[in-house]
Amino acid sequence: MSQQQRGRPTGRRTGDSGTRDAILDAALTLFAERGYDAASVRAIAESAGVDPALIRHFFGDKNTLFATVVADRTSIPARLGAALDGDPSTLGARVADAYLRLWEDPQTRPTLLALVRSATTSPHAADMLRDLLAGRAPALAPDKAQGTALAASHLFGIAFTRHIIKLPAITACDHDTLVAAVAPTIQHYLTADQQTASTNAR
Amino acid sequence: MSQQQRGRPTGRRTGDSGTRDAILDAALTLFAERGYDAASVRAIAESAGVDPALIRHFFGDKNTLFATVVADRTSIPARLGAALDGDPSTLGARVADAYLRLWEDPQTRPTLLALVRSATTSPHAADMLRDLLAGRAPALAPDKAQGTALAASHLFGIAFTRHIIKLPAITACDHDTLVAAVAPTIQHYLTADQQTASTNAR
Repeated sequence: MSQQQRGRPTGRRTGDSGTRDAILDAALTLFAERGYDAASVRAIAESAGVDPALIRHFFGDKNTLFATVVADRTSIPARLGAALDGDPSTLGARVADAYLRLWEDPQTRPTLLALVRSATTSPHAADMLRDLLAGRAPALAPDKAQGTALAASHLFGIAFTRHIIKLPAITACDHDTLVAAVAPTIQHYLTADQQTASTNAR
Repeated sequence: MSQQQRGRPTGRRTGDSGTRDAILDAALTLFAERGYDAASVRAIAESAGVDPALIRHFFGDKNTLFATVVADRTSIPARLGAALDGDPSTLGARVADAYLRLWEDPQTRPTLLALVRSATTSPHAADMLRDLLAGRAPALAPDKAQGTALAASHLFGIAFTRHIIKLPAITACDHDTLVAAVAPTIQHYLTADQQTASTNAR
């Protein structure tokens, strides 16, 4: 049971919230280390020092567990959300900076890598990544859904070629250079009238 | 040895070129079906009806075999190359159309999917994908290397969110709508002065 205490240094855990915390801490570590598919509920339970049935009791399925880990144990949603607030004329630069910074940050990169690696083979992980990419869309105007998706696709492509494929002309850029290069495009996609819809209606 | 004849209906194969053809046909099928990592040289040899040592004799390593398969057994390089020729003012639309069409085409999509799925876990497959993404860069002006990489990253991100993650706002677009939506950005990246370099020099 000593494993139940590791991961978070603060205080003693008692009852449901302590158990829930221990599961989330263990899940964060194992998802990042092994990827979504390879991190089994059984291994997460063992690492947290709990019975696997407790994980199902608290979180239902593994998909929901991962979603809760991303929401409660990483700064990803808060940082993407914060980038949406501010001067509309610099929205593209803020979003590009926040998104690409998540991939540079040793705290968040392992989770993103695990998610992307799993998304290519696991429909559940692909669902998770889709929710993460599309999740902030409601905060923007509803008629910007396609533009938001184009922006997300572009930034995702940059992160993939920079951190997974390691395309030389992309890895050669420092973070600020890359943000400056893509910010006008992201700004355009997030704020322009929905050009794709009008094209569609031709 | 009857398997040596399958895959290509035309004529009888004799000697080195027949053996080489049989290996490439078997490799194309197995890479597409199983992905880069799971398609072993041994399985490819067995499917082609040859000794694995012959594959090493003709192609060296698996990486080179895959590169030869993409170059000789798919239309991918020729179609991307052809898109570069023509009116410079519509370059972005032609490149976006050719690239995204490769992902819609049942002849080429399995190879691209196999490559991307493997690239997330295999450094060799990532090398291959990098070569494929960056391979046409020399055909453009040398000072456009970063722009070319940004364009490739953007198109790759669109293909990934459309065909692997299946982001709803991207899958909802038909091919022409998507091409029209991204063409101005691709045109900008492929033809604009190297803004990232100048930003870098600030």
